[in-house]
Amino acid sequence: MKAQVAEAILRAQNILVISHKDPDGDAIGSILGLTWALRKIGKRVYPACPDAVPEIYAFLPGSNEISPLSATTQDLIVTLDGSDATRFGDCFAAELVADFTVVSIDHHVTNTRFATVNWVGPTYVATCEMIFDLLPFLGVALDSRIATCLLTGALTDTRGFRTSSTTPRILKVAAELVEAGAPLAEITDQVFNNHALKSLQLWGKVIESMDFSGGLLWATNTVAMRRACGVDRTATNGVVNVLATAREANAAILFTERDDDKIEVSMRSRPGYNVADVAFRLGGGGHPQAAGCTVDGPLRQAVGRVLAEVRASFDG
Amino acid sequence: MKAQVAEAILRAQNILVISHKDPDGDAIGSILGLTWALRKIGKRVYPACPDAVPEIYAFLPGSNEISPLSATTQDLIVTLDGSDATRFGDCFAAELVADFTVVSIDHHVTNTRFATVNWVGPTYVATCEMIFDLLPFLGVALDSRIATCLLTGALTDTRGFRTSSTTPRILKVAAELVEAGAPLAEITDQVFNNHALKSLQLWGKVIESMDFSGGLLWATNTVAMRRACGVDRTATNGVVNVLATAREANAAILFTERDDDKIEVSMRSRPGYNVADVAFRLGGGGHPQAAGCTVDGPLRQAVGRVLAEVRASFDG
Repeated sequence: MKAQVAEAILRAQNILVISHKDPDGDAIGSILGLTWALRKIGKRVYPACPDAVPEIYAFLPGSNEISPLSATTQDLIVTLDGSDATRFGDCFAAELVADFTVVSIDHHVTNTRFATVNWVGPTYVATCEMIFDLLPFLGVALDSRIATCLLTGALTDTRGFRTSSTTPRILKVAAELVEAGAPLAEITDQVFNNHALKSLQLWGKVIESMDFSGGLLWATNTVAMRRACGVDRTATNGVVNVLATAREANAAILFTERDDDKIEVSMRSRPGYNVADVAFRLGGGGHPQAAGCTVDGPLRQAVGRVLAEVRASFDG
Repeated sequence: MKAQVAEAILRAQNILVISHKDPDGDAIGSILGLTWALRKIGKRVYPACPDAVPEIYAFLPGSNEISPLSATTQDLIVTLDGSDATRFGDCFAAELVADFTVVSIDHHVTNTRFATVNWVGPTYVATCEMIFDLLPFLGVALDSRIATCLLTGALTDTRGFRTSSTTPRILKVAAELVEAGAPLAEITDQVFNNHALKSLQLWGKVIESMDFSGGLLWATNTVAMRRACGVDRTATNGVVNVLATAREANAAILFTERDDDKIEVSMRSRPGYNVADVAFRLGGGGHPQAAGCTVDGPLRQAVGRVLAEVRASFDG
């Protein structure tokens, strides 16, 4: 499959390289890693994404070139890290891409094979790892710029080599990327150690709101707390993972009160305690150890109801 | 040197394996990794440490066997991860070890060559990485138990592959350890995501106490705050690293008020902002990006004095 993908790419001259909505490090890293690789072999490359590049990835070389483009005069579209055609938003509207050859490179097992040439690699930890494997087929030598982009995706999709999905192979790939000049510690600082001061202030308030009973830890993020800190509700992204480090807790639950009185529920649990079931019953979804849903307010009632559901589920 | 170390070990039958006071993951991991390796080749091994094993390493196989032993009837002492004879406390008192053959395996460049056979490896990231390299010379095949111990040291000495000391080699070694059965995600959870609930409560209070001005962020950990949470002052270990994630801060400083009115000062800074100079001037020490000192109280005056020193140092 790699050979077919490389062949399709090598035949083209003007290439649109796009990734998915709400882009993460693997989306931005794979767009830019492939963009710089193809430019080394003389291709004209247009990096695109339907949404803006998050600030924490702005340090990546070329990030300022990424825009919400659609294919026009290009002769190939390469879609990255997206499992179906809707993931690429307006960049990939059906009426715009119908006449194009499309190559899909994606590590999600759920990929629908929507493209002309589909390389789906569910054993890969990140799409950036697939791009790394593709380089020899393209005749491209790794350099520090490409390595920096690809290591970013490897790091973000494994939360810095901390997820159970982390394979020996991705560690070996990371070693080669560092050898090629990717600054591991700097990338880590940029993507994991980079919070606005106001967000940290909100973290403090959320952590102070912690309550604990019967193996469950919960905390709240209220409209009033956010107003006091001058931030929006995305400012607590990540704090539920901090709550989940409490040794005594089998599960940690963050309740975020929205402006419209709905309550977002974000849950983390230890192996052996499944929170996906509860989330699903309450209209949400996720994985056994990380799941979420949105329920009706007011906050106090929502907390009581969700805690009761979680307790019943753990006891059942 | 590896061959000489292996020769000395292979000649012995009863071996005391010790590491340093206030043991970290590399100390405990290297003691246990070597212990299990030597037992595979029929040696009688006594794992020892002058201080107790911290709770977060209790999951390591054999951790309950580690005790504050000294050499008595053994025919060899192997010291691990300690750069001079004082690091091993009462386990290595001069009058007790004078007649013993001692092998030192250590990755610190400051090692004083205090042993009979000294293998000092400053290009190694962790002493556990040196043990990994020694295994073939001992004729020991890696197994999941040894791999789990060694990966723990590799992870803790690199803060989960996040420090600038992280080398391609340690990533490749980690890949082999995971291949051999070391559970990377579980180890990470045990050593990095494992806080007492009361400690987290104190984190919340410390983060809430944050203040910021002119690129400096500081926070306090007072006797009253700790009393409210029912914890001792070690409960905020790590929180200064959270403070240092604030995007706007060139340096983050945590002031911990002790019971004796002294103030412990813990500082972290971005590259380009050296906090070691200030720490040294105030009687402490450390590295350019992570340093500390202890100054006289009361708290309020200490904060003013240290902030002024840091500002003068950054401006100078």
